[in-house]
Amino acid sequence: MDIQEYQKEFLTYLESKEWVQEPKNLYEPIDYILQLGGKRIRPILTLMAADIFSDEYKKALPAALAIEVFHNFTLIHDDIMDAAPLRRGKATVHEKWDINRGILSGDAMLILAYKYFENYEPIVFQKLAKLFSKTALEVCDGQQLDVDFETRKDVTIDEYMNMIRLKTSVLVAAALKMGAIVAETNDKNADLIYDFGLNLGLAFQLQDDYLDTFGDAETFGKQIGGDIMENKKTFLYLKTLEVADKETKKKLKYFYRKKLKENTLKIIEVTRIFQINDIPILVTKEIENYTEKAFSTLSKMDISEENKQNLKAFGLWLMKRTV
Amino acid sequence: MDIQEYQKEFLTYLESKEWVQEPKNLYEPIDYILQLGGKRIRPILTLMAADIFSDEYKKALPAALAIEVFHNFTLIHDDIMDAAPLRRGKATVHEKWDINRGILSGDAMLILAYKYFENYEPIVFQKLAKLFSKTALEVCDGQQLDVDFETRKDVTIDEYMNMIRLKTSVLVAAALKMGAIVAETNDKNADLIYDFGLNLGLAFQLQDDYLDTFGDAETFGKQIGGDIMENKKTFLYLKTLEVADKETKKKLKYFYRKKLKENTLKIIEVTRIFQINDIPILVTKEIENYTEKAFSTLSKMDISEENKQNLKAFGLWLMKRTV
Repeated sequence: MDIQEYQKEFLTYLESKEWVQEPKNLYEPIDYILQLGGKRIRPILTLMAADIFSDEYKKALPAALAIEVFHNFTLIHDDIMDAAPLRRGKATVHEKWDINRGILSGDAMLILAYKYFENYEPIVFQKLAKLFSKTALEVCDGQQLDVDFETRKDVTIDEYMNMIRLKTSVLVAAALKMGAIVAETNDKNADLIYDFGLNLGLAFQLQDDYLDTFGDAETFGKQIGGDIMENKKTFLYLKTLEVADKETKKKLKYFYRKKLKENTLKIIEVTRIFQINDIPILVTKEIENYTEKAFSTLSKMDISEENKQNLKAFGLWLMKRTV
Repeated sequence: MDIQEYQKEFLTYLESKEWVQEPKNLYEPIDYILQLGGKRIRPILTLMAADIFSDEYKKALPAALAIEVFHNFTLIHDDIMDAAPLRRGKATVHEKWDINRGILSGDAMLILAYKYFENYEPIVFQKLAKLFSKTALEVCDGQQLDVDFETRKDVTIDEYMNMIRLKTSVLVAAALKMGAIVAETNDKNADLIYDFGLNLGLAFQLQDDYLDTFGDAETFGKQIGGDIMENKKTFLYLKTLEVADKETKKKLKYFYRKKLKENTLKIIEVTRIFQINDIPILVTKEIENYTEKAFSTLSKMDISEENKQNLKAFGLWLMKRTV
């Protein structure tokens, strides 16, 4: 159980594939986005789960690749929809080429993801493909809800949690469960590791909301205050609308009315509103809740105590990018 | 074996599904495009093949739906790439809503297509999903080649035939083979009906090229001369470059240099060039070649003489929309 080993193993496997085929114009963007880097957390999760439930985690490499290719497909199409110029500091696919190339290369990646499951025999294949289709459709639902929320004024915290569950957490959960499926462990274990991933994913996403305002630019890797600039209805914003007094709500809504060119003052003011209303404490409590929920599933799992501790250590490592 | 019965059965099945779910903004465009009509040729092919190789063709309805949903996904994304305002006389999805809705709804449809295969047991499921992934990726390849050809000046007839094979014929072939897979006939029959579909698909597409210039606007359903207006490098154009004299080639290339506002003269002149160079005869011969090739696979098939005649009658019916 060594995260860096999983990562290395995955990257070797990724690089062993010939990405650029004919027609080159279709496959070059696929090669490009897959080489952009990233922490490769999702495929690592697949390998980790396979390692926990079996002796030969390398059998899970094709499933891990399917998850990573799918994730990068969502990045290409989401970047088009968000008109984002940059991804990991480099030009996005539709910026480097054009929107049409982004659409078609993304489509091809979604199909390629399914093809990696062909490495498994029919019963495992069907289990993987079913989980994958269910998850991929949920990710689409989550993306649509995220877009819908931009123009809605009555988003509740429950709706928000449902959106981030669909948009990001189910993929983390499915990545783990795929490792369990390849390892052919029992259904109970597979479902429990899914729940572990789902709750850890929610905790992780809430932490992302927290760090976007209260994090350290250097360790967080993104510009602090980005969500405030974009008027994103994050957990921080929605929680404030739930707990603050009438006057504060009005002020917060006023700041979120439009996007500005100069954001320094807006970020300072909104951050102060969050602080006065104890939002950092409230969101931290929520993050702890979901992390605890994730860890509590471990006790029900039919694996060695050592593996439980390993999974817990991984969860703590993942959540430890605080401030 | 009754094409109208297959069509009716398919439409009843299509309409029995609840297309509009939450989030509505994602599923409304899916419902819209699937209700736009069309001849439903591909799902009919799946049902027909299942009927020929088994007693209960209705078992093939989910596979037929997968094919139709996939086909409509390609229409949504292709219409975005072509900036097409109309599809079957109605607004295209990206025109009625916007490009983002078109991208995301299309993505969801590609995933939905895979989900219909979940109605089959693991071995049939894997066969269907493998054939589907292979075919879907080929369709992407074909679409990219079609885009690439727009700006290339050295496209050969072989390259063109390969492009239309990928872009349109493999889906016709796969639709038939899926019916054979669901019917659990032997591999030889399944491969032969694939070849039947592939060659019939090529004949059909060449006929489309022919009718676009030499057809009757009323029965063809599209504006005559559309390919000439768009400077499309069809079989007619490429064959002319192969057989005509230097002067004629120069003239044809001159007409294809740019798009015009007023096309009457261009269409008349280019049509005349095609006629003088016997292109109608040459393309008709080619259509007959591929149709004959399709029919010749029938003799090797392990089915009743009656079914062979039925398949042949279907092929003739499909090709009979001449002039």
